[in-house]
Amino acid sequence: MANKGKLYVIAAPSGAGKTSLVKAMVQSTPHVKVSVSHTTRPIRPGETDGMNYHFTSQEIFLELMNRGQFLEHAEVFGNYYGTSEAWVRAQLDSGEDVILEIDWQGAQQVRKLMPEAVSIFILPPSKEALRERLIGRGTDDMEVIERRLNQAVNEMSHYGEFDYLVINDEFDLALRDLQTIIRSRRLSISWMQHYKSDLIEGLLN
Amino acid sequence: MANKGKLYVIAAPSGAGKTSLVKAMVQSTPHVKVSVSHTTRPIRPGETDGMNYHFTSQEIFLELMNRGQFLEHAEVFGNYYGTSEAWVRAQLDSGEDVILEIDWQGAQQVRKLMPEAVSIFILPPSKEALRERLIGRGTDDMEVIERRLNQAVNEMSHYGEFDYLVINDEFDLALRDLQTIIRSRRLSISWMQHYKSDLIEGLLN
Repeated sequence: MANKGKLYVIAAPSGAGKTSLVKAMVQSTPHVKVSVSHTTRPIRPGETDGMNYHFTSQEIFLELMNRGQFLEHAEVFGNYYGTSEAWVRAQLDSGEDVILEIDWQGAQQVRKLMPEAVSIFILPPSKEALRERLIGRGTDDMEVIERRLNQAVNEMSHYGEFDYLVINDEFDLALRDLQTIIRSRRLSISWMQHYKSDLIEGLLN
Repeated sequence: MANKGKLYVIAAPSGAGKTSLVKAMVQSTPHVKVSVSHTTRPIRPGETDGMNYHFTSQEIFLELMNRGQFLEHAEVFGNYYGTSEAWVRAQLDSGEDVILEIDWQGAQQVRKLMPEAVSIFILPPSKEALRERLIGRGTDDMEVIERRLNQAVNEMSHYGEFDYLVINDEFDLALRDLQTIIRSRRLSISWMQHYKSDLIEGLLN
Protein backbone atom coordinates (compact mmCIF):
# COMPACT_ATOMS: atom_id res chain seq x y z
CA MET A 1 0.00 0.00 0.00
CA ALA A 2 0.95 3.62 -0.47
CA ASN A 3 0.55 4.42 3.21
CA LYS A 4 4.25 4.20 4.03
CA GLY A 5 7.67 5.69 4.38
CA LYS A 6 10.47 4.68 2.06
CA LEU A 7 13.43 2.43 2.78
CA TYR A 8 16.82 3.75 1.64
CA VAL A 9 19.92 1.60 1.46
CA ILE A 10 23.13 3.64 1.44
CA ALA A 11 26.48 2.00 0.76
CA ALA A 12 29.96 3.36 0.13
CA PRO A 13 33.59 2.33 0.35
CA SER A 14 35.36 3.19 3.59
CA GLY A 15 36.61 6.77 3.31
CA ALA A 16 33.84 8.06 1.04
CA GLY A 17 32.27 10.09 3.87
CA LYS A 18 29.04 8.13 4.13
CA THR A 19 28.54 8.43 7.88
CA SER A 20 28.96 12.23 8.00
CA LEU A 21 26.68 12.69 5.00
CA VAL A 22 23.94 10.50 6.41
CA LYS A 23 24.18 12.25 9.78
CA ALA A 24 23.84 15.69 8.17
CA MET A 25 20.95 14.51 6.02
CA VAL A 26 18.99 13.07 8.95
CA GLN A 27 19.49 16.31 10.90
CA SER A 28 18.27 18.42 7.98
CA THR A 29 15.32 16.30 6.84
CA PRO A 30 12.17 15.54 8.83
CA HIS A 31 10.76 12.01 8.92
CA VAL A 32 14.02 10.23 8.20
CA LYS A 33 15.80 7.99 10.65
CA VAL A 34 18.80 5.71 10.51
CA SER A 35 18.20 2.09 11.39
CA VAL A 36 19.83 0.87 14.59
CA SER A 37 21.42 -2.53 13.97
CA HIS A 38 21.57 -5.50 16.27
CA THR A 39 25.08 -6.69 17.09
CA THR A 40 26.79 -9.31 19.22
CA ARG A 41 29.99 -7.31 19.61
CA PRO A 42 30.63 -5.95 23.11
CA ILE A 43 29.44 -2.46 23.94
CA ARG A 44 32.26 0.14 23.98
CA PRO A 45 32.72 3.08 26.34
CA GLY A 46 30.51 5.97 25.25
CA GLU A 47 28.04 3.76 23.38
CA THR A 48 24.38 3.49 24.38
CA ASP A 49 22.31 0.35 23.95
CA GLY A 50 19.40 1.03 21.61
CA MET A 51 21.06 4.13 20.18
CA ASN A 52 24.36 3.03 18.62
CA TYR A 53 23.32 -0.60 18.41
CA HIS A 54 20.94 -3.04 19.95
CA PHE A 55 23.54 -5.07 21.85
CA THR A 56 22.48 -8.69 21.89
CA SER A 57 23.88 -12.02 23.04
CA GLN A 58 25.00 -14.42 20.36
CA GLU A 59 22.34 -16.89 21.47
CA ILE A 60 19.51 -14.41 20.94
CA PHE A 61 21.00 -13.10 17.70
CA LEU A 62 21.22 -16.57 16.19
CA GLU A 63 17.68 -17.36 17.27
CA LEU A 64 16.38 -14.18 15.62
CA MET A 65 18.45 -14.99 12.54
CA ASN A 66 17.13 -18.53 12.31
CA ARG A 67 13.58 -17.22 12.63
CA GLY A 68 14.24 -14.97 9.63
CA GLN A 69 13.85 -11.76 11.63
CA PHE A 70 16.69 -9.90 9.90
CA LEU A 71 16.31 -7.96 6.69
CA GLU A 72 20.05 -8.40 6.28
CA HIS A 73 22.86 -9.70 8.45
CA ALA A 74 26.58 -10.24 8.29
CA GLU A 75 29.42 -11.71 10.33
CA VAL A 76 32.49 -9.49 10.65
CA PHE A 77 35.53 -10.66 12.62
CA GLY A 78 33.43 -13.15 14.56
CA ASN A 79 30.72 -10.62 15.50
CA TYR A 80 27.23 -10.62 14.04
CA TYR A 81 25.39 -7.56 12.75
CA GLY A 82 21.79 -7.46 11.56
CA THR A 83 18.82 -5.21 10.77
CA SER A 84 15.49 -6.12 12.33
CA GLU A 85 12.83 -6.36 9.64
CA ALA A 86 10.00 -5.84 12.14
CA TRP A 87 11.52 -2.57 13.37
CA VAL A 88 12.05 -1.29 9.82
CA ARG A 89 8.52 -2.16 8.75
CA ALA A 90 7.04 -0.50 11.84
CA GLN A 91 8.86 2.74 11.00
CA LEU A 92 7.76 2.61 7.37
CA ASP A 93 4.17 1.91 8.37
CA SER A 94 4.18 4.99 10.57
CA GLY A 95 5.29 7.08 7.56
CA GLU A 96 8.95 7.47 8.51
CA ASP A 97 11.70 7.00 5.94
CA VAL A 98 14.42 4.63 7.12
CA ILE A 99 18.09 4.59 6.09
CA LEU A 100 20.20 1.46 6.27
CA GLU A 101 23.95 2.05 6.19
CA ILE A 102 25.20 -1.28 4.92
CA ASP A 103 27.57 -2.77 2.35
CA TRP A 104 26.81 -4.17 -1.10
CA GLN A 105 26.20 -7.65 0.28
CA GLY A 106 23.64 -6.37 2.76
CA ALA A 107 22.09 -4.31 -0.03
CA GLN A 108 21.64 -7.48 -2.09
CA GLN A 109 19.87 -9.19 0.80
CA VAL A 110 17.54 -6.20 1.31
CA ARG A 111 16.66 -5.98 -2.38
CA LYS A 112 15.50 -9.59 -2.32
CA LEU A 113 13.17 -9.04 0.64
CA MET A 114 12.11 -5.47 -0.14
CA PRO A 115 12.58 -4.76 -3.85
CA GLU A 116 10.87 -1.38 -3.43
CA ALA A 117 13.84 -0.11 -1.40
CA VAL A 118 15.77 2.75 -2.99
CA SER A 119 19.53 2.21 -2.99
CA ILE A 120 22.21 4.88 -3.14
CA PHE A 121 25.95 4.41 -3.58
CA ILE A 122 28.36 7.12 -2.47
CA LEU A 123 31.65 7.45 -4.35
CA PRO A 124 34.74 9.52 -3.59
CA PRO A 125 35.76 11.91 -6.40
CA SER A 126 38.98 10.01 -7.20
CA LYS A 127 41.25 7.25 -5.98
CA GLU A 128 43.81 9.85 -4.90
CA ALA A 129 41.19 11.61 -2.76
CA LEU A 130 40.20 8.29 -1.23
CA ARG A 131 43.83 7.43 -0.43
CA GLU A 132 44.34 10.85 1.16
CA ARG A 133 41.24 10.45 3.29
CA LEU A 134 42.40 7.04 4.46
CA ILE A 135 45.88 8.44 5.23
CA GLY A 136 44.32 11.46 6.91
CA ARG A 137 42.91 9.28 9.63
CA GLY A 138 46.56 8.86 10.64
CA THR A 139 46.24 5.60 12.47
CA ASP A 140 47.50 3.04 10.00
CA ASP A 141 50.69 2.21 8.15
CA MET A 142 50.85 2.24 4.36
CA GLU A 143 50.31 -1.48 4.04
CA VAL A 144 47.02 -1.30 5.93
CA ILE A 145 45.99 1.70 3.83
CA GLU A 146 46.73 -0.11 0.57
CA ARG A 147 44.71 -3.08 1.76
CA ARG A 148 41.81 -0.77 2.59
CA LEU A 149 42.10 0.85 -0.83
CA ASN A 150 41.82 -2.56 -2.44
CA GLN A 151 38.79 -3.34 -0.30
CA ALA A 152 37.30 0.00 -1.34
CA VAL A 153 37.80 -0.81 -5.03
CA ASN A 154 36.12 -4.16 -4.46
CA GLU A 155 33.16 -2.46 -2.74
CA MET A 156 32.96 0.18 -5.49
CA SER A 157 32.86 -2.44 -8.22
CA HIS A 158 29.25 -3.06 -7.13
CA TYR A 159 28.11 0.53 -7.70
CA GLY A 160 26.10 -0.53 -10.76
CA GLU A 161 23.67 -2.53 -8.60
CA PHE A 162 22.37 0.69 -6.99
CA ASP A 163 19.60 3.04 -8.13
CA TYR A 164 21.47 6.31 -7.54
CA LEU A 165 25.08 7.48 -7.40
CA VAL A 166 26.28 10.40 -5.31
CA ILE A 167 29.84 11.67 -5.67
CA ASN A 168 31.19 13.15 -2.47
CA ASP A 169 33.60 15.75 -3.81
CA GLU A 170 32.27 18.78 -1.96
CA PHE A 171 30.36 17.83 1.17
CA ASP A 172 27.58 20.41 0.75
CA LEU A 173 26.89 19.39 -2.84
CA ALA A 174 26.85 15.70 -1.97
CA LEU A 175 24.45 16.45 0.90
CA ARG A 176 22.21 18.38 -1.49
CA ASP A 177 22.25 15.41 -3.86
CA LEU A 178 21.15 13.05 -1.10
CA GLN A 179 18.39 15.47 -0.11
CA THR A 180 17.31 15.74 -3.75
CA ILE A 181 16.85 11.98 -3.98
CA ILE A 182 14.73 11.83 -0.83
CA ARG A 183 12.72 14.92 -1.73
CA SER A 184 11.96 13.57 -5.18
CA ARG A 185 10.57 10.38 -3.62
CA ARG A 186 8.27 12.62 -1.58
CA LEU A 187 6.80 13.96 -4.80
CA SER A 188 6.06 10.44 -6.00
CA ILE A 189 2.43 9.60 -6.50
CA SER A 190 2.31 7.09 -3.63
CA TRP A 191 3.77 9.53 -1.10
CA MET A 192 1.55 12.39 -2.28
CA GLN A 193 -1.59 10.26 -2.28
CA HIS A 194 -0.90 9.55 1.37
CA TYR A 195 0.28 12.96 2.58
CA LYS A 196 -1.91 15.16 0.38
CA SER A 197 -5.06 13.05 0.33
CA ASP A 198 -7.26 15.86 1.72
CA LEU A 199 -6.07 18.35 -0.86
CA ILE A 200 -6.57 15.87 -3.71
CA GLU A 201 -10.01 14.91 -2.47
CA GLY A 202 -10.99 18.58 -2.29
CA LEU A 203 -9.97 19.05 -5.92
CA LEU A 204 -11.90 16.10 -7.25
CA ASN A 205 -15.16 16.49 -5.36
CA MET B 1 21.00 1.98 -23.42
CA ALA B 2 22.10 4.35 -20.71
CA ASN B 3 23.51 6.87 -23.18
CA LYS B 4 20.45 9.12 -23.23
CA GLY B 5 18.43 12.01 -21.94
CA LYS B 6 15.14 11.45 -20.20
CA LEU B 7 11.64 12.06 -21.52
CA TYR B 8 9.29 13.93 -19.19
CA VAL B 9 5.56 14.12 -19.72
CA ILE B 10 3.96 17.02 -17.86
CA ALA B 11 0.19 17.36 -17.65
CA ALA B 12 -2.13 19.62 -15.67
CA PRO B 13 -5.63 21.02 -15.75
CA SER B 14 -6.05 24.39 -17.42
CA GLY B 15 -5.26 27.07 -14.82
CA ALA B 16 -2.72 25.05 -12.81
CA GLY B 17 0.17 27.15 -14.11
CA LYS B 18 1.90 24.45 -16.12
CA THR B 19 3.19 26.62 -18.96
CA SER B 20 4.83 29.21 -16.69
CA LEU B 21 6.40 26.51 -14.52
CA VAL B 22 7.81 24.60 -17.47
CA LYS B 23 9.17 27.80 -18.99
CA ALA B 24 10.93 28.74 -15.75
CA MET B 25 12.33 25.25 -15.37
CA VAL B 26 13.74 25.10 -18.87
CA GLN B 27 15.39 28.49 -18.34
CA SER B 28 16.96 27.40 -15.05
CA THR B 29 18.08 23.89 -16.00
CA PRO B 30 20.70 22.99 -18.62
CA HIS B 31 20.06 20.16 -21.07
CA VAL B 32 16.26 20.35 -20.96
CA LYS B 33 14.09 21.37 -23.84
CA VAL B 34 10.37 21.46 -24.53
CA SER B 35 9.15 19.48 -27.48
CA VAL B 36 7.78 21.49 -30.40
CA SER B 37 4.55 19.88 -31.65
CA HIS B 38 3.31 19.54 -35.20
CA THR B 39 -0.06 21.12 -35.84
CA THR B 40 -2.43 21.68 -38.72
CA ARG B 41 -3.98 24.80 -37.22
CA PRO B 42 -3.13 28.07 -39.00
CA ILE B 43 -0.17 30.07 -37.80
CA ARG B 44 -1.15 33.14 -35.72
CA PRO B 45 0.46 36.58 -35.73
CA GLY B 46 3.60 36.55 -33.59
CA GLU B 47 4.13 32.80 -33.92
CA THR B 48 7.21 31.32 -35.57
CA ASP B 49 7.21 28.08 -37.51
CA GLY B 50 9.54 25.57 -35.86
CA MET B 51 9.52 27.47 -32.57
CA ASN B 52 5.90 27.58 -31.36
CA TYR B 53 4.82 24.69 -33.57
CA HIS B 54 5.84 22.89 -36.72
CA PHE B 55 2.98 24.16 -38.89
CA THR B 56 1.97 21.43 -41.29
CA SER B 57 -0.71 20.82 -43.89
CA GLN B 58 -3.40 18.33 -43.01
CA GLU B 59 -2.25 16.12 -45.87
CA ILE B 60 1.27 15.83 -44.53
CA PHE B 61 0.10 15.47 -40.93
CA LEU B 62 -2.18 12.56 -41.80
CA GLU B 63 0.55 10.89 -43.81
CA LEU B 64 3.00 11.17 -40.86
CA MET B 65 0.26 9.90 -38.56
CA ASN B 66 -0.54 6.92 -40.75
CA ARG B 67 3.16 6.05 -40.92
CA GLY B 68 3.21 5.98 -37.10
CA GLN B 69 5.59 8.93 -36.82
CA PHE B 70 3.88 10.51 -33.81
CA LEU B 71 4.58 9.56 -30.22
CA GLU B 72 1.17 10.99 -29.43
CA HIS B 73 -1.43 12.95 -31.36
CA ALA B 74 -4.86 14.46 -30.83
CA GLU B 75 -7.58 16.25 -32.72
CA VAL B 76 -8.92 19.40 -31.06
CA PHE B 77 -11.71 21.46 -32.70
CA GLY B 78 -10.85 20.01 -36.10
CA ASN B 79 -7.11 20.70 -35.85
CA TYR B 80 -4.47 18.02 -35.40
CA TYR B 81 -1.60 18.15 -32.93
CA GLY B 82 1.20 15.62 -32.64
CA THR B 83 4.69 14.97 -31.27
CA SER B 84 7.31 13.63 -33.66
CA GLU B 85 8.86 10.48 -32.24
CA ALA B 86 11.97 10.83 -34.42
CA TRP B 87 12.66 14.35 -33.13
CA VAL B 88 12.20 13.30 -29.50
CA ARG B 89 14.47 10.27 -29.88
CA ALA B 90 17.17 12.35 -31.58
CA GLN B 91 17.19 14.77 -28.63
CA LEU B 92 17.33 11.95 -26.10
CA ASP B 93 20.14 10.25 -28.01
CA SER B 94 22.15 13.45 -27.87
CA GLY B 95 21.76 13.52 -24.07
CA GLU B 96 19.09 16.21 -23.85
CA ASP B 97 16.07 15.83 -21.60
CA VAL B 98 12.80 16.50 -23.39
CA ILE B 99 9.55 17.76 -21.90
CA LEU B 100 6.18 17.07 -23.48
CA GLU B 101 3.35 19.33 -22.34
CA ILE B 102 0.33 17.17 -23.10
CA ASP B 103 -2.90 15.97 -21.53
CA TRP B 104 -3.68 12.66 -19.83
CA GLN B 105 -4.72 11.05 -23.11
CA GLY B 106 -1.43 11.98 -24.77
CA ALA B 107 0.39 10.75 -21.68
CA GLN B 108 -1.28 7.36 -22.05
CA GLN B 109 -0.14 7.13 -25.68
CA VAL B 110 3.44 8.05 -24.73
CA ARG B 111 3.58 5.50 -21.89
CA LYS B 112 2.68 2.75 -24.33
CA LEU B 113 5.47 3.65 -26.76
CA MET B 114 8.07 4.80 -24.23
CA PRO B 115 7.34 3.25 -20.84
CA GLU B 116 10.61 4.67 -19.48
CA ALA B 117 9.18 8.21 -19.72
CA VAL B 118 8.76 10.00 -16.38
CA SER B 119 5.36 11.62 -15.97
CA ILE B 120 4.49 14.55 -13.73
CA PHE B 121 1.05 15.94 -12.95
CA ILE B 122 0.67 19.51 -11.71
CA LEU B 123 -2.25 20.31 -9.41
CA PRO B 124 -3.60 23.63 -8.16
CA PRO B 125 -3.73 23.94 -4.35
CA SER B 126 -7.56 23.99 -4.23
CA LYS B 127 -10.65 24.20 -6.38
CA GLU B 128 -11.22 27.76 -5.17
CA ALA B 129 -7.72 28.76 -6.30
CA LEU B 130 -8.33 27.14 -9.67
CA ARG B 131 -11.65 28.97 -10.08
CA GLU B 132 -9.98 32.29 -9.19
CA ARG B 133 -7.20 31.69 -11.70
CA LEU B 134 -9.72 30.91 -14.42
CA ILE B 135 -11.75 34.04 -13.53
CA GLY B 136 -8.54 36.08 -13.34
CA ARG B 137 -8.01 35.62 -17.03
CA GLY B 138 -11.06 37.87 -17.34
CA THR B 139 -12.15 36.83 -20.79
CA ASP B 140 -14.99 34.43 -20.15
CA ASP B 141 -18.43 34.49 -18.57
CA MET B 142 -19.25 32.32 -15.59
CA GLU B 143 -20.83 29.58 -17.65
CA VAL B 144 -17.63 29.11 -19.63
CA ILE B 145 -15.62 29.15 -16.42
CA GLU B 146 -17.80 26.49 -14.82
CA ARG B 147 -17.44 24.33 -17.91
CA ARG B 148 -13.66 24.73 -17.76
CA LEU B 149 -13.72 23.82 -14.06
CA ASN B 150 -15.57 20.63 -14.90
CA GLN B 151 -13.06 19.86 -17.62
CA ALA B 152 -10.28 20.51 -15.10
CA VAL B 153 -11.81 18.07 -12.62
CA ASN B 154 -12.05 15.49 -15.39
CA GLU B 155 -8.38 16.02 -16.30
CA MET B 156 -7.34 15.88 -12.62
CA SER B 157 -9.17 12.59 -12.09
CA HIS B 158 -6.27 10.99 -14.00
CA TYR B 159 -3.56 12.25 -11.63
CA GLY B 160 -3.03 8.73 -10.29
CA GLU B 161 -1.63 7.54 -13.64
CA PHE B 162 1.42 9.79 -13.20
CA ASP B 163 4.74 9.10 -11.46
CA TYR B 164 5.00 12.41 -9.61
CA LEU B 165 2.64 15.07 -8.31
CA VAL B 166 3.57 18.73 -7.95
CA ILE B 167 1.19 21.14 -6.22
CA ASN B 168 1.46 24.67 -7.56
CA ASP B 169 0.55 26.70 -4.50
CA GLU B 170 3.60 28.97 -4.41
CA PHE B 171 5.29 29.27 -7.77
CA ASP B 172 8.87 29.15 -6.44
CA LEU B 173 8.22 26.02 -4.39
CA ALA B 174 6.50 24.26 -7.28
CA LEU B 175 9.43 25.18 -9.52
CA ARG B 176 11.84 23.77 -6.95
CA ASP B 177 9.80 20.56 -6.86
CA LEU B 178 10.02 20.19 -10.65
CA GLN B 179 13.76 20.82 -10.50
CA THR B 180 14.10 18.25 -7.72
CA ILE B 181 12.47 15.59 -9.88
CA ILE B 182 14.76 16.27 -12.83
CA ARG B 183 17.89 16.57 -10.66
CA SER B 184 17.14 13.29 -8.94
CA ARG B 185 16.94 11.56 -12.34
CA ARG B 186 20.40 12.94 -13.03
CA LEU B 187 21.71 11.08 -10.01
CA SER B 188 20.27 7.82 -11.31
CA ILE B 189 22.74 5.11 -12.14
CA SER B 190 22.09 5.23 -15.89
CA TRP B 191 22.63 9.00 -16.12
CA MET B 192 25.75 8.89 -13.92
CA GLN B 193 27.23 5.95 -15.81
CA HIS B 194 27.01 8.06 -18.92
CA TYR B 195 28.04 11.47 -17.59
CA LYS B 196 30.58 10.36 -14.98
CA SER B 197 32.10 7.40 -16.82
CA ASP B 198 35.66 8.79 -16.63
CA LEU B 199 35.45 9.39 -12.90
CA ILE B 200 34.03 5.92 -12.27
CA GLU B 201 36.64 4.27 -14.46
CA GLY B 202 39.40 6.12 -12.59
CA LEU B 203 38.10 4.76 -9.30
CA LEU B 204 37.91 1.15 -10.39
CA ASN B 205 41.19 0.82 -12.26
